[in-house]
This record gives sequence, structure tokens and C-alpha cells, in this order.
Amino acid sequence: MIPWLDYASVAVFALTGALAASRAQLDIVGFMFLAGLTAVGGGTLRDLLLDRTVFWIADPTHLGIILVAATLTFFTAHLFESRLTALVWLDAAALAVAVAAGVAAARGSGQSVPVVLVMGVITGTVGGLTRDVVANEVPLLLKQGEIYATAALAGAGAALVAAALTDHPLAASAACIAVTFALRAGSLAFGWRLPVYRSRPPRA
Amino acid sequence: MIPWLDYASVAVFALTGALAASRAQLDIVGFMFLAGLTAVGGGTLRDLLLDRTVFWIADPTHLGIILVAATLTFFTAHLFESRLTALVWLDAAALAVAVAAGVAAARGSGQSVPVVLVMGVITGTVGGLTRDVVANEVPLLLKQGEIYATAALAGAGAALVAAALTDHPLAASAACIAVTFALRAGSLAFGWRLPVYRSRPPRA
Amino acid sequence: MIPWLDYASVAVFALTGALAASRAQLDIVGFMFLAGLTAVGGGTLRDLLLDRTVFWIADPTHLGIILVAATLTFFTAHLFESRLTALVWLDAAALAVAVAAGVAAARGSGQSVPVVLVMGVITGTVGGLTRDVVANEVPLLLKQGEIYATAALAGAGAALVAAALTDHPLAASAACIAVTFALRAGSLAFGWRLPVYRSRPPRA
Repeated sequence: MIPWLDYASVAVFALTGALAASRAQLDIVGFMFLAGLTAVGGGTLRDLLLDRTVFWIADPTHLGIILVAATLTFFTAHLFESRLTALVWLDAAALAVAVAAGVAAARGSGQSVPVVLVMGVITGTVGGLTRDVVANEVPLLLKQGEIYATAALAGAGAALVAAALTDHPLAASAACIAVTFALRAGSLAFGWRLPVYRSRPPRA
Repeated sequence: MIPWLDYASVAVFALTGALAASRAQLDIVGFMFLAGLTAVGGGTLRDLLLDRTVFWIADPTHLGIILVAATLTFFTAHLFESRLTALVWLDAAALAVAVAAGVAAARGSGQSVPVVLVMGVITGTVGGLTRDVVANEVPLLLKQGEIYATAALAGAGAALVAAALTDHPLAASAACIAVTFALRAGSLAFGWRLPVYRSRPPRA
Repeated sequence: MIPWLDYASVAVFALTGALAASRAQLDIVGFMFLAGLTAVGGGTLRDLLLDRTVFWIADPTHLGIILVAATLTFFTAHLFESRLTALVWLDAAALAVAVAAGVAAARGSGQSVPVVLVMGVITGTVGGLTRDVVANEVPLLLKQGEIYATAALAGAGAALVAAALTDHPLAASAACIAVTFALRAGSLAFGWRLPVYRSRPPRA
């Protein structure tokens, strides 16, 4: 199950990185670079922290997926009506799948509950954060009033609850993907948000 | 001793990360994310480089400390007259403690003198640097004419001198904290600085 | 051979980091910090990913090289007519040597062809990318229409072709350095470039 989650999150995150490259008007190798950075960033940090073999070194298929996603985007990105909208929604899907992959890997390593939650959030968010910092855009993670890290944390929590309730091997990942994507999509489509910090009370 | 240094630097750096989150007006999970990134960034890189088990995976108490610091700041940050001043001074305290923690860990791993110095500087500076890059503020480390990396390096050196002069187990850390904080505080309070590079001689 | 490639790339990348520090008007410890970050960034990530002992921890000579390069630059940078031109050309040389070092290390670890290519690109580009992100300059890697990551990838490929054609131990590194530097220099001197992505066709 974990390899498929990693494949899916790599593919979708690679598309978002390539779309960011199209916004920066890079050449095709720049597309591959930014797609790769985004696609493997979170999972690579997860594997370094857990002292596992880095997933794309163990299985370079992931590099092939990035190559295809970057090339495809280079030649078809102009077909999207809004590349930013496409980027943001694909990013939501990739976030959901990557959180599930991070939780599964950490549970497979026998980590404690807080470490599993953190690995879910790291695997989900670090790739997109790196993409935004390198491409010099405001990180989606830090857009004021949007649900992003919250969705990742809630999804990781849902995976743990589902795993405690049932033994079905897909339950944890399915619950994680559903909760993470629903919260993030609700934020994008309906403006759901948590209260943000304000330095003074809002005017009456 | 090392666990206590790590606890202290995590707590104080977490406060600075949460204050940066308040300046970016994030929600409470954003506070936790930025607090966590700042609190464990330097020590995590140190442990990866030295091939030790990452300290907060070995002991998730650190994650609880971050949770408390972020929540506390979310509800009380408006009480500070200037959140930027609070951030900068807390950052000075965290820097001092984190350099000591980095030096202690590197000495415990039997590293050579130059590597011990570098580990002190990395553990002290990387968390705050990441906070500033992600929150899109000018890194404190690079503020022109301020003593920052210099304070970390001098503190790490002081730890080695103290360790050579006495066997008392607290001497190295105490010397490191005192020297690092004194230099950084002197720079903040009295404008102490090293000469900076100028591309041409100052006008007469 | 690998140690000499690492020494050379550390020395030249350290000069570029110190030149970036001169543009930000930092003090001498800031020069050392930015020089060090740039000089060891790529190789450190390579070693962490390949689970090797980090090269400058195994051999702190590298830290001495950084110290000398930063100090030298601090006192002589004003002699350059254009520090930006010097930075960009030294960066091209460092890129070429670092890609060769990355390819050699990955081949020495018995990695697959795609992983060797990626390690070459990572070792070559990550130090300079970090320098530019931290110093808040537009990353050379992302300058629109310039050949950068492309040169690194082509150089890594040339190393593999050379290694397949001959057993001479220097052939792969020589081919890699020549191809990488030639492409990057051609882009700088003659404006060579790959077609970049455009969201709409250029006007007639």
C-alpha cells in the first residue's frame, strides 16, 4: 500500500511543481527540477528523520514518474484556463495522499503517536512549502485564514482513529485522505477557516 | 544535562516561532507548525549530520513542549507591548541555549574541535533562520551589522576553553550560554558590532 | 580523486558565498557562515541521502578551506570590478566541479543510473540555491532562460557516457566538468538557452 501512496503523491505533487515552473516561465529541465523538489521533498525528509532508505533511491521509478509529469505539463499547461487554480486543487489532492503515506510509513516503523502525527504533517507539507519558497511565492501553508496544516493534522489523527477501530489495511489511509482533502477543499471552495490570531480585537 | 538544554532551547525557540506566526496572523495549527519548525530545526540537522537518532523522535516530550508554547502564545501574544522586541530577545536566549546544546552533543559524539564549533553554530542558528525564511522576514542572522553568528561561534569557543580548564560538567555549557547571550544582548542593547564589508572606503 | 573534487568545489563555492555576503555587507563571521552554507550544502545533502558519513565531518580540512576563502574574500572583494560577474562565473566553475564530485560519489556507492544523475544535479545545485534563497537573491537556477540545471544534468550524463567508453579513472570527471562548464559558460557569454514555457504564443 505504501508504495502506491508514494507513487500517487509523487505524481500529483510533481504536477504542482511543474505548474509553478510554468508560472516562473522556466525551461523543461527547470520544470523537472521544481517538479522533483516538490514531489520528493516531504517523503525524503520523513525517510531521513526515520533513518529509512530514502524511497526514491530504493525505487527510482519515482524519478521516471517525475520526468513524465514535468514533460507532460511543459507541453499542456497552456490548456488550463487558470494554472493557479489547477495548482491549488492538485496541491490539495497531493497533500491528502502524502499525509496518508507519511502516517503509513511512520506506523510501519513503530513510532509513537505524536511522532506519527508529525510525520504525516511533514510528509504532506514540506514538498509544497519548498516549492513555494524556491519559486518565491507566498507559501500556501501560510496563506492567512486558509486550512492547510490543520487539514494535514486532522487527517493524520483520523488515520490513527480508523486504525484503532478496524483492522482493514486500507481503512487508515482512506480515512486520512478523506478527512484531509475534505477540510482543505472546504477551505478552498467554501472559505472554511479557523479563527486567526489578531493583535487587537476586531472593530465592532 | 543535554536533555535539559534541548528542552529549554525547544521551549524558547517555540515561543519565537509562535510570535512570528502571530505577526503573519496564522491560525493555531499554523502557530504549532512554525513553532515546531523553529524549535527543532537546528537540533534536527545536528542529529542528522552526526548520525544520531533525532532527539524529538527519541523523546516526543519535545513535541508536547511545542504544543504548549504555541497554544500559550496564541492566546497571550497580544499582551506584549511589542511582539517584535519580545521575539528578538527570546531569540537571543534560545540561541545561547541551543549553541550549548549543540556543542554538548558534538563533544559527546567525540567530534574534532572544528566540527564541534560548527555543530554549535548550526544548532543555534538553523531553527531561527528557517523561521525567518519561511515567514518571509529578513533573517536576524543576516541583519547588517548585528552580532549573531559571531556570538554563536564565540560561545562555542568559550565552551571548549572552559572544558579544557575544568572538569566540572556544567562549566562548558554555562560559559557558552554566558558568552553567546552577552555578545548578542550587547549587540541588541548597545549596538555592539563587528566592522562590515564595504565595497568602497567610507567618506572622510 | 573524489576528495580533490570535493576540495575544489568547496573552495570555489565558498568564494561565491563570500561574494554574496559582500553584496549583503555582512561582517567576517557572516562571510564564513554564508561561504560554508554554499560550499557544503550540496555535498552534505548528497551524503545524507546516500547514508554516507558527511564529507566535512569525516575530513574537517574542508572547514579550513572555507575559513581561508571567506577571510580572503572579506579583504579583497573590493578589488573586483564587478562582484556579481565574479560571483556568476565562479559559480559556473563550482557547479561543474561539484556535479563531477556528486556523480563520482554516487557511482562509488553503486547507485542506479537515474540516482547517479540526480545526485550529480543535487550536489551541483543545492549549495548555490541555498545561498541565493538565504541571501534573498533570485536563484541563479531559476533565472529565466538561462542554462543551469540543464548544464548539470548534461554534465552528469556525459560522465556516465565517458565511464562506459573508457576505463581511465579521470575520464568521467573530466567529461562532466567540460560539458557542464561549457554549457553554463555558453549561456552566460553567448546567451545560449532552451525554449522556455510560454502561456500563450509569442506575438507575430
